[in-house]
Order: sequence, then C-alpha cells, then structure tokens
Amino acid sequence: MLQPPPARPGMREDEVDTPALLIDLDAFEHNLDHMAGLLAPTPAKLRAHAKTHKSPVIARLQMARGAVGQCVQKVAEAEALAWGGIPDILVSNEVVGPPKLARLAALARISKVAVCADDPSQVAAIEAVAEDAGVRLPVLVEIDVGAGRCGVLPGPDAVALAKLIAQSKHLIFGGLQAYHGSAQHKRTVEERRTLIGNAVDGSRRTVEQLRQQGLDCPIVGGAGTGTFQIESASGVYNEIQAGSYVFMDADYARNLDEAGVPVSTFRHSLFVLATVMSTPNRNIAVVDAGLKALAVDSGMPTIWQRPDIRYLSASDEHGKLEVASETTPPKLGEKLRLVPGHCDPTVDRYDWYVGVRGGRVECLWPIAARGGMH
Amino acid sequence: MLQPPPARPGMREDEVDTPALLIDLDAFEHNLDHMAGLLAPTPAKLRAHAKTHKSPVIARLQMARGAVGQCVQKVAEAEALAWGGIPDILVSNEVVGPPKLARLAALARISKVAVCADDPSQVAAIEAVAEDAGVRLPVLVEIDVGAGRCGVLPGPDAVALAKLIAQSKHLIFGGLQAYHGSAQHKRTVEERRTLIGNAVDGSRRTVEQLRQQGLDCPIVGGAGTGTFQIESASGVYNEIQAGSYVFMDADYARNLDEAGVPVSTFRHSLFVLATVMSTPNRNIAVVDAGLKALAVDSGMPTIWQRPDIRYLSASDEHGKLEVASETTPPKLGEKLRLVPGHCDPTVDRYDWYVGVRGGRVECLWPIAARGGMH
Repeated sequence: MLQPPPARPGMREDEVDTPALLIDLDAFEHNLDHMAGLLAPTPAKLRAHAKTHKSPVIARLQMARGAVGQCVQKVAEAEALAWGGIPDILVSNEVVGPPKLARLAALARISKVAVCADDPSQVAAIEAVAEDAGVRLPVLVEIDVGAGRCGVLPGPDAVALAKLIAQSKHLIFGGLQAYHGSAQHKRTVEERRTLIGNAVDGSRRTVEQLRQQGLDCPIVGGAGTGTFQIESASGVYNEIQAGSYVFMDADYARNLDEAGVPVSTFRHSLFVLATVMSTPNRNIAVVDAGLKALAVDSGMPTIWQRPDIRYLSASDEHGKLEVASETTPPKLGEKLRLVPGHCDPTVDRYDWYVGVRGGRVECLWPIAARGGMH
Repeated sequence: MLQPPPARPGMREDEVDTPALLIDLDAFEHNLDHMAGLLAPTPAKLRAHAKTHKSPVIARLQMARGAVGQCVQKVAEAEALAWGGIPDILVSNEVVGPPKLARLAALARISKVAVCADDPSQVAAIEAVAEDAGVRLPVLVEIDVGAGRCGVLPGPDAVALAKLIAQSKHLIFGGLQAYHGSAQHKRTVEERRTLIGNAVDGSRRTVEQLRQQGLDCPIVGGAGTGTFQIESASGVYNEIQAGSYVFMDADYARNLDEAGVPVSTFRHSLFVLATVMSTPNRNIAVVDAGLKALAVDSGMPTIWQRPDIRYLSASDEHGKLEVASETTPPKLGEKLRLVPGHCDPTVDRYDWYVGVRGGRVECLWPIAARGGMH
C-alpha cells in the first residue's frame, strides 16, 4: 500500500508529520550546481547514480544540468526511471535470470538501456533475451578495480568478455564498468588517491588492450561522491557515477580533504524529521525515528545544528538521544532534523520526499523506485 | 508506488523473483500453534505484536488461535489493522502531536483502540482529541521496567499518571505497559530471569499501589519472544506482547536455553530469497540482497542449510558471501534462502509476503503497514 504523504505543499516544516524524509531544496540545488561546475572543465560527464534518489524527478534535474544519463543498480530502478521519462539508463550491475532480463529488454523500446556482465554465460543470456525481444542492448564489461565484489580482472579477462559481447548479434560492446565502492569512504585523500590510482591504471591498461584488438570503449564509467575528482581528472574515465552528492550523509561528512578537515563542498540536504515522543528525564529524549526510519549500517544519525545532542541507539521505532547537561533539552513534541548515517538505504524506506525551503513545504516527490525486486 | 509481487501462487519456489520475502508456511504455523500451546496453561493471553508482521492476515491467524488482540507501535500500523478488520488494538507506545492523535481517535469508531502515555501533558492531549472526536479512549501508563527508554518509574509516578487518566472525562485507565525490550536478546536464561524478575517486581508493586487507590489494572502487558515464559508465569502480567516468535531471526537464534544450547522451540519461518548474481572466484559469491533487502543492525544474515557459506558484508544492493574451500560453491543464478539478522526491520522493506509450502508458492499477502509515519 502506498503510504499517504506526511505533508502538503504550503505547510510549515514544523507541521510535517513524522518520521518524514525532508530535502532542504536550497542545499540540494547547491549540490546539483556544484557538481555540474566541478565536472564542466574535465573530460568526464556525469551519469548520476539513481540508486541514491530513486526518483525520475531528481534524475531530470541532474540531466538539466548536464548529466548524460542515469545509473541504476537493478531493473526495478531502471523501470521507474524509464517510465518516468529518462532516456538513457545504465544498469551498472549484473542482471541475472531470464525474468529480470526480459523486463530489461522490454524497456529498451522506450529508453536507451545498457547493462553489465562479468561472466560469459551472462553474455549468452543477455543475447538470448535481446534476440527474443527484437532489440540490441549495449553491454559493458564490469572489471574489478579493487573492490573485490563483482567483475572480471582488468586486462585479458575483460578483453575476452568484450570480444564475446562484440561478436553477439543483438549486443553492442558498451565499454567498461570500473567502480571502486569501498574507496569512497576512505577518510584521507592519500588513501583514496592510492586506491583510485590503481583503478585508473587497471582501466587504462584494459582500454589500451581493447584498442589493440580493435575495440573502442564508448563508456569508461565509475567513481562516487568520495573520489570522483580523481577519476574525472584521469583522462581515462569519461563517465562519473556519483549519487550521494545530491544529499550527503553523516558518513560522507567524515571524509577529510587535503587539509585533514571534513570535506564540505557539498551540503547536507537530506534529513529525517523526527518528533520527540518521550522525555523520561533531563538528559534523555526519545524520538520516533529508529531502525525502520533510518539506516544505521554506517553509524547513528547526527542531530542537525544540535551538537549537544547525541543519538545513542536505535530500536525498531525509537531513537534514544542523550542531551548534554549544560544545554536546553528538546521539549516533548519538538521536531528535530536528523542527518542519516547512510543516505541510500535511508531513502529506500520512504514513499515520499518532502521538499522544504525557508521553513515551508514547497513540493512532494514520490520515491518511485523504492523497494522492489532487483 | 506499490511494487508488483515477485511471485504467483502455484509457482515453484525457485521461480520466485528476488530478492523476495518468503514465509515457510509449515514453520510459521508451527510457531503460531506452539505459542498458543505454551500460553494456554498460564493466566496470560497473547496480544501479539504486529510491529513484526504488519499484516492483518497474520493478525487474524493469531487471533484464531486465542490471541485477544494486537499490539502496534504506531498509528499507521493501527490504521492498517483496523482497516483490515482487527477489532482490538493497543498502541504500546506514546503517540505525540494532534494530527496523529486525531487519526487514532478516528479509528476508535471501527475498532477498540488503546494507547500509552508517560507524561501528564500527553494525557491532556489525548483527552482533547477524544473529546473532539466524541469517543472514549483507554489509556495505559507506560512504566520503565528497566529498558531505560520511554515510561515513568514504577510506583508513585505511575499511580499519579493513572489517576489523571481515570479522572479525564473521555479516557479510561487501561492498565500498565511494562515491556523490557533489551532483556529479550540477553543470551543466557539467568540474565533474562534477573532483568524480568525486576520488571515483574516493579509491575506488581505498581498494581498493588493502584489497587490501594481504588484503581484496577485491566491490562498488565509486556514481554517478548525472548522472555515471555517468565512474564506469563508471573501472575502479574496478563497480556504477552511477543511478535518475533512467528518468524524468528538469526539474532533470536543466538539466545540460549537452560542447557546452554540455542533455544529451538520456534522455527525460522522468514527468509529472504536471493539470487547468486556473480561468482568472481571459487570462494566468493555475490547475491542480490544487501542493505536494502535485509536489516543488518543485529548482525549479518545466515545462509539456510548452508553452514559452509558465510555472509561477509552487505552493500546497498549486494551481499558478499564466502564459500568454504572444501564444499561445492553455489552456481551463478542459484537461489539461496537467507535468515535475516533481525526480522522486524527486514519485513518493513517489503510490500509482499510470499508464502511457500512443499517447494510451491501457496499465497501472497500484502505487508499492509509497511513504512509510513508513526
């Protein structure tokens, strides 16, 4: 059942029902513009990752600022974007099993849809559904540039798979998917440079070996919010797949810049609005946002503009806060903005974004690709 | 957007699209029957907690086996149950703010609905909406029996609040809410007995002091899957609020019994069905169930009937598995049942239960109260 929205346009922010997922529109638009500005002088284009926002509305705002398309992680997200009018979608992931592949091929009639592979049997499976649907699908080879998850090794293994794709009648070799996920959250610039340096080397080597075999790489894609400035300046990557930059989260806020201070070029624009529902004593407040309202895999949320309050622990429907003794505790019924520890899986819990500006609700946007199968 | 169901009745389990939330119906029905059998000889009745299952279908199956009603943790869950025909609902939690309270009072016309309070200002707020809606609402006093979250202290504070409720024209004093959440997951019987012993003492003392003031306690409610046999035998608690027993999870499976071995009277009936989507090498397999498909707050999932496979880590849409060297690794495209670390927040990610029996899909049930505001 679609849940009703927690707000109406025109309401004051403090009237929004809770827990609710807020977008601070000023900060959000700053992030959109700032990313466009950072990438403009580089050879790389943005193909923003929609696994973060799951919204064709936000995808269109990114494309209006120069993004060439969107990445998604699964077919259900590709469907939501294609049905919402997005013309160019890359599933930056493997899609396994005939039912999912048939759904993907069906989308190719309304949007350009590409997908990744890291196994010869997968190339054969994609060829079969593409033939069946009467479409031609671009397929990228995913290479493991250090994350140790999916992907073939850079070099000969990748070249062999690319040739197999290029030789398949209903497929087009689309390039390389070369994302290093775990590098995004390394805290120091040095750690991120070392890991992405290796990713760039592996990608460059593979591109060269492909060229020697007569295969061009239309896309060399990867990078996230933590490292995209390295990939975009590499001369190898031509598509940047950052997603979290539109929202940021408490975990990304712990990444450090050259000077060893937290990176602050993107602003927190995503908040869970919560209500204080119990104040059992002076130092403890309980809010209505717990494990079902917030992802805690990357740490507890922080409290926006209240460094004196610490989110101690989350249970299913409660968050327990500790208030410093020397400050004024929040009142019963007071609403607090929480900065989620990890934006992507937090968004996936909600049906609606509530866009706010200047203390008022300006818009409601459905989170069209929330939940669902791969 | 409501996501389409990942299966049709009659399908084989291995045809179900993934990730999907399965109920093994034989194990599930065993759990329903077993709980009814354990509580039958005690003075306590089951008021099962719907925050686990969020489904009026499952609520009706519990009530057909003797449950007197359902608990919920928030108004959105009370709405889903009342709209689904459940006649007796306790919000075992505080509900703060006039909009939520007005929704709750509106439900009182179609179901019996009770709510908790732990602050005098809340009693006044509930009285105001009850008067406005022209209904009488039972209100329980929540006491903190050791969990250190919401609730007033047992004894005089609780009695004062109960009196305030009893004196309110549109309210009825409904009894005591006396749940000890953190005791549920203590591993040894001794730890659970000590904590619940204190909870029983505080509850008994408060009931006696209320009686001295001429106030009866229609409900003394609490207990969960980890401790309910202690509360149900106490002679003080008359309602048991266990929820997880219908499904169990990997965390509850770590609780030990008297003999120091894992408690096994309830069976795992809830699984996330996942597909192996990449097999980069002999010892690693990647499945399509990560942070968005599984709650990891209480640990990683286990792999059903494959003790040789360990779920190492979860990213947004991937789970990385390590396969022991001496066993046969799962194949690309193979489906595996995962036992979630924590059942409640895992359920909250899905729109549909897929009920399976004997390798076939028998039913689809909507998770009616998924997501939503408090």
